[in-house]
Amino acid sequence: MTPTHCVSLLTDYGLEDGFVAACHGVIAGISPQTRIIDITHLVPPGDVRRGAAIMAQTVPYLPSGVHVAVVDPGVGTARRAIVIADGERVFVGPDNGVLSWAAAGPGLRAYELTNPELWLDPVSATFHGRDVFAPVAAHLAAGRDVASAGDEIDPADLVTLPAPARSVRDGGAEGEVLTVDRFGNVQLSITGADLDLIGAHPGATLAITLGRRSLTVPYGETFGSVPPGELVAYTDAAGCVALAVNSGNAVQRLGLPPGAHLRLTVAR
Amino acid sequence: MTPTHCVSLLTDYGLEDGFVAACHGVIAGISPQTRIIDITHLVPPGDVRRGAAIMAQTVPYLPSGVHVAVVDPGVGTARRAIVIADGERVFVGPDNGVLSWAAAGPGLRAYELTNPELWLDPVSATFHGRDVFAPVAAHLAAGRDVASAGDEIDPADLVTLPAPARSVRDGGAEGEVLTVDRFGNVQLSITGADLDLIGAHPGATLAITLGRRSLTVPYGETFGSVPPGELVAYTDAAGCVALAVNSGNAVQRLGLPPGAHLRLTVAR
Amino acid sequence: MTPTHCVSLLTDYGLEDGFVAACHGVIAGISPQTRIIDITHLVPPGDVRRGAAIMAQTVPYLPSGVHVAVVDPGVGTARRAIVIADGERVFVGPDNGVLSWAAAGPGLRAYELTNPELWLDPVSATFHGRDVFAPVAAHLAAGRDVASAGDEIDPADLVTLPAPARSVRDGGAEGEVLTVDRFGNVQLSITGADLDLIGAHPGATLAITLGRRSLTVPYGETFGSVPPGELVAYTDAAGCVALAVNSGNAVQRLGLPPGAHLRLTVAR
Repeated sequence: MTPTHCVSLLTDYGLEDGFVAACHGVIAGISPQTRIIDITHLVPPGDVRRGAAIMAQTVPYLPSGVHVAVVDPGVGTARRAIVIADGERVFVGPDNGVLSWAAAGPGLRAYELTNPELWLDPVSATFHGRDVFAPVAAHLAAGRDVASAGDEIDPADLVTLPAPARSVRDGGAEGEVLTVDRFGNVQLSITGADLDLIGAHPGATLAITLGRRSLTVPYGETFGSVPPGELVAYTDAAGCVALAVNSGNAVQRLGLPPGAHLRLTVAR
Repeated sequence: MTPTHCVSLLTDYGLEDGFVAACHGVIAGISPQTRIIDITHLVPPGDVRRGAAIMAQTVPYLPSGVHVAVVDPGVGTARRAIVIADGERVFVGPDNGVLSWAAAGPGLRAYELTNPELWLDPVSATFHGRDVFAPVAAHLAAGRDVASAGDEIDPADLVTLPAPARSVRDGGAEGEVLTVDRFGNVQLSITGADLDLIGAHPGATLAITLGRRSLTVPYGETFGSVPPGELVAYTDAAGCVALAVNSGNAVQRLGLPPGAHLRLTVAR
Repeated sequence: MTPTHCVSLLTDYGLEDGFVAACHGVIAGISPQTRIIDITHLVPPGDVRRGAAIMAQTVPYLPSGVHVAVVDPGVGTARRAIVIADGERVFVGPDNGVLSWAAAGPGLRAYELTNPELWLDPVSATFHGRDVFAPVAAHLAAGRDVASAGDEIDPADLVTLPAPARSVRDGGAEGEVLTVDRFGNVQLSITGADLDLIGAHPGATLAITLGRRSLTVPYGETFGSVPPGELVAYTDAAGCVALAVNSGNAVQRLGLPPGAHLRLTVAR
């Protein structure tokens, strides 16, 4: 590929150790001109689904380049390491689904990382972020062709995570809790477009059914659409419906873990 | 302005999500040569005062450039978004006071962010850091004139936070707890210069009155001016008087929350 | 030295304040072309030994450049500030041992930081990271000779931390817990090479004696060498023997604090 000046990194390595810095160092050594953007390193250990969701929501705002995701509980086992080329974007990581929501278009090309010339030598059994994924990403960012990374494989054979539950039926939008952010805002798999389909527009009141519980919530534009301390639904910056408490914490208020199912309708 | 190679960012976005990376990505896409310095992203959610204090104490040590602060509980409401030009420094953020302690000189010029040509399109209602503040900062860093950001406004109309309580009277210096750092050091609004005025110099013993409590503390140069485990007052790297326990944690020892009032005198 | 494009930083400053950003700003102001790599800023406050271990394990993967470690409970006291030149690597920090495991080769040259021309003016008593270490590192990265930093001193006089306990005797390998990482993996001072010496190779079963407790653990290649929830020993990416629970947390399982002593033998 054309030399690129951006490699982004998402891992579950945490920030207490030198693991992330070792990856930065390897990249900077191979491709000194490359900018490194840390997506996050605080994915909960081994939470592939959370890593996949953050990748999918963040990468569209990053420059074209090489995007690396290492949430890799199977490191050192038979799971494949892969690179996926998706137009101007290149993804590098383990073949466990962590890339499957971000690299989801048609026209993908995929390669297994089988060319050790692009790796550090020796390769440890437990730190492929440093020894395999970072150096491969740096070589690609420096201009090596993606095909040099290894054997081409069929994109249809890549491991994919099941999409979050989401449907519109019987006049309601159904889905699940995707993530909770630092502010305690609860992001749903239901989108603003789904609410449009059931005739719910900002200004409406939504009825939310959560198992046996139900409540009504105003559908606003932003947190400040309701007084402090009150619950509001809105379409968030990723296009998803989210629940928030203005100047408060919705996940504490509602007790909604990731994966919890909800049904939204327009309140009469 | 002349192209500049530094944008700094302070937010309350946390580090668990991809929010900060999305801002980095937007800036890098618009102004690829710009260095981004993360001031902190761990301002407690919505704590405008804490954000303002960190901006004021940190920006003097950053290169001239564009300094962005996004602690913005009113995002998407009628609160204004602004840019303030302060000589070679340019500040970008919401008009809620978060910039008011850092951009405090005479000769300020201010503009409301009313020119959507400098924003992403579309603009979400809840993530102006990514969609408005980051791209505006990047365009200014890349050389756009601050006046291109929007309509000029009167700096006297900007929202300002009240200054922390601080006075010298009756032979004592009075003030409040500004912040507590990671080491448990308690930073006061009282300055080293205030102690000079009451005749307290390093080597003296200070009497501290906290509500009904009082205690005496040696006034030293640094933590190590007292034995491990002992309390010491010193003038910190921001010029403020601070209380620390050598190799210990003063906030745990003293139980002093931000905003608590104190009076310091020279102990007889 | 030849201008270099990398300064790395390890501190115990945390990420909640603007301390790290002030150091970045000082470096960027003096040496605008320099890349800054954050090793970590979450060393537990004052934990010199932990800082030394992370430096030693991370620096080999960083580009040649200037490596700064500031874990400095004695800041502002008589402890010396130093620079150590180790071939193409230059280390900067307090003379308290935090650099002593990373800068350990023969042929070291050392200098006390006695030249205030390379510091900020004034220098605070409590923030030498910003006022002394960062500007010295930036000047050296920008091409100043290490000898300009101050008076040459005898490397034999530098403060060194005692090496972690580690020995091979009576058919067993003995050592201590070095660190615990974010995943709860327990890293020992015992190396893979030590296990070779006692005839233990991947595939073997190890007997571990911890005080009065003993247990047997398979010696595998990686976490995934055992089923989820099971304990495994392996040689980690730093060459050390480590104990992990596949998809779990070994330190919680074993209750092993840093410094705890262990003896490993081949199980019969």
